[in-house]
Amino acid sequence: MTITDTPIRLPIPPLPRGFRVAAVHAGIKRNASREDVTLVASDLPATAAGVYTTNLVYAAPVAYDRSLTPGRNFRGVAINSGNANACTGARGLDDARAMAAAAGKLIGAAADEVLVLSTGIIGEFLPLEKITRGLEQAAARLAVDDDAVVTAARGMMTTDTRPKLAGSTFAADGTAYTLFGMAKGAAMIGPRLATMLGVVLTDAAIEPADAERLLREAAETSFNCVSVDGHMSTNDTVLLLANGAAGGGTLHGAGLAAFGRSLSAACETLAREMADDGEGATHVMRIEVTGCATRDEARQVARTIADSPLVKTAVHGADPNWGRIVSAAGYSGVRFDPTQVRLRLNGTLLFQAGAPVPFDADAVSASIKAARETLIELELGSGPGAIRFYSSDLTAEYVHLNADYHT
Amino acid sequence: MTITDTPIRLPIPPLPRGFRVAAVHAGIKRNASREDVTLVASDLPATAAGVYTTNLVYAAPVAYDRSLTPGRNFRGVAINSGNANACTGARGLDDARAMAAAAGKLIGAAADEVLVLSTGIIGEFLPLEKITRGLEQAAARLAVDDDAVVTAARGMMTTDTRPKLAGSTFAADGTAYTLFGMAKGAAMIGPRLATMLGVVLTDAAIEPADAERLLREAAETSFNCVSVDGHMSTNDTVLLLANGAAGGGTLHGAGLAAFGRSLSAACETLAREMADDGEGATHVMRIEVTGCATRDEARQVARTIADSPLVKTAVHGADPNWGRIVSAAGYSGVRFDPTQVRLRLNGTLLFQAGAPVPFDADAVSASIKAARETLIELELGSGPGAIRFYSSDLTAEYVHLNADYHT
Repeated sequence: MTITDTPIRLPIPPLPRGFRVAAVHAGIKRNASREDVTLVASDLPATAAGVYTTNLVYAAPVAYDRSLTPGRNFRGVAINSGNANACTGARGLDDARAMAAAAGKLIGAAADEVLVLSTGIIGEFLPLEKITRGLEQAAARLAVDDDAVVTAARGMMTTDTRPKLAGSTFAADGTAYTLFGMAKGAAMIGPRLATMLGVVLTDAAIEPADAERLLREAAETSFNCVSVDGHMSTNDTVLLLANGAAGGGTLHGAGLAAFGRSLSAACETLAREMADDGEGATHVMRIEVTGCATRDEARQVARTIADSPLVKTAVHGADPNWGRIVSAAGYSGVRFDPTQVRLRLNGTLLFQAGAPVPFDADAVSASIKAARETLIELELGSGPGAIRFYSSDLTAEYVHLNADYHT
Repeated sequence: MTITDTPIRLPIPPLPRGFRVAAVHAGIKRNASREDVTLVASDLPATAAGVYTTNLVYAAPVAYDRSLTPGRNFRGVAINSGNANACTGARGLDDARAMAAAAGKLIGAAADEVLVLSTGIIGEFLPLEKITRGLEQAAARLAVDDDAVVTAARGMMTTDTRPKLAGSTFAADGTAYTLFGMAKGAAMIGPRLATMLGVVLTDAAIEPADAERLLREAAETSFNCVSVDGHMSTNDTVLLLANGAAGGGTLHGAGLAAFGRSLSAACETLAREMADDGEGATHVMRIEVTGCATRDEARQVARTIADSPLVKTAVHGADPNWGRIVSAAGYSGVRFDPTQVRLRLNGTLLFQAGAPVPFDADAVSASIKAARETLIELELGSGPGAIRFYSSDLTAEYVHLNADYHT
């Protein structure tokens, strides 16, 4: 495959120093042009942290990774798509460990120095032979170029239409660092860490506890603020690996804060990409809720709006239907005074003081039609709690994809 | 109109003694063949109770009725469709009272002896002249025959494809009583008393406090156990009127319990009808959750399954996708032990002890295709908490209805 086959937003971000990646088609997915095994290798031992699904029914790779992070001395991540290794009991956990061991053997690491990610069909055992062979082929191709990066991100994809990449640089005490992220997710995207996989790599050196804390904070305002269908997966995982290859020593203080900002920005980019690539989506909804008592309350209001099929279909139909938005806020469970509410759609004021205001419905409808992103701004009062939340609209194509294809 | 035009499940239940109904087209709906004003009159003063939306953004008729119920001496209900009188501020409340006063004048009652229900477009003022004229015409046609009953139920409808009726009889101390219910609702049907209107009439005599308590209990296992799209409306209301026209004295003890059972059965029938008539629905899902600690926990699990677009589309596609059902339960927020879970779909065991069991997927798929109702039975453990919940599947037609038509 060549990267020109892949619809992707340029530029492709560079890998941080000391990381190499590769992906191959190992035969898990039926379509031979789709990569399904990705290997991420770190030349140096890396700090790793993870955030995971809160679904009670969680998959074997989640159990495996959660038992190991946060920690030091990680050397890589083995990833497969096409099979989630979920609802597979004790054998599933053995298989996750075997997959980590197989990858570790190829890069000179122990099983517990490699993390694993799986996504795809639920309830079937991992095809370990195919995965092991795929990892062998991938290990032979580990590279740092754009083609390797895009292929690696494609190897995580299921129904995604494009790989999701983010990158940034930051500096601390005269050292320049690179941060890179890749993710997948287009459905079973729920509001509290969704059916998604994400891998964030940096060449900074970070203490495990700091990595864990900053990854959690970044997820709070990114992966926990995105929804396609509100259905939380069994496999959601975001991993952060920090290998220190840039030199400059372990980050603390202002350097650590700079890393945290870079991490949050990359996570938000990846989260927005998931909503944008939501199954069948024709619009990405950016929902800005302000004036709540707390950020959690703002998120709860935003999530209720984001998950309302009536709001999602209204956006799809370019209908400036303030009633659906305001009434969704009203049943979110968050207390507010309806007479203090103010709603703007794509910048136009539609509702305030408990009643609609006159507006040019045709113009607002045209603005929805004209852009991929629809902006919903809802002020609920004067409190400090605010959130930005991304969601997709609901289309007949989403229904076709999920009714007509078995997963 | 003649009742043969109307798809309806026969037999049409009779009105309790002492109640008369009528409906007319008053020009609120554009289509002149659609009734939009309904009048319910009680010849005797009736006890009335109500349950209402818990949406913070509630409509004027909700505010008006809630201020009056529970109580005695009610003489009727004035209902309009096509305009919800929601988000209409102080004028909306004045309009609700004026509508009650207009109806009261026609049947010899004060404004506060008449309750009002409105459903339809949000954010526009009631067309009071049209409604008053419609009430006058309806008052002249009040009747008890099947045609009047079906027309009255049609006068509440918005996107419903058919009127929703329920009826039963019960006896206490040698007196025979009749109970009658009519309701509307096909979208904005949320899980905690949904966008729906319901009116239940009985010729029994009931104390206001008993009427209130039993109506709440009945709603808990009927209207609070139904979902089309999880979006809670601003106007949800169920009213119960009990006029004592059957004689036999005020019900207590065993007689009151018999009434309560009759009331619950009628409410469940109406609630199921709403899910069955869900916008675009091709299936009604009956979700039976058992083995929880409490009924509320069982309802929370059932609601999460009912509202998952992935479960809804799987049922639409006749896909026995146990993974979507089990994983929805897993993110419901209710604690359970996944190894104790047992799932049946249309009677076939699909999942137990934390893993899928072998089953004939083609046969189960065929059973989904063959019937309007799909039965999902989920055992989560050995607790006493159980619930029955109704929902509709999600189809492209739902998307078309809500994206392409403005409400």
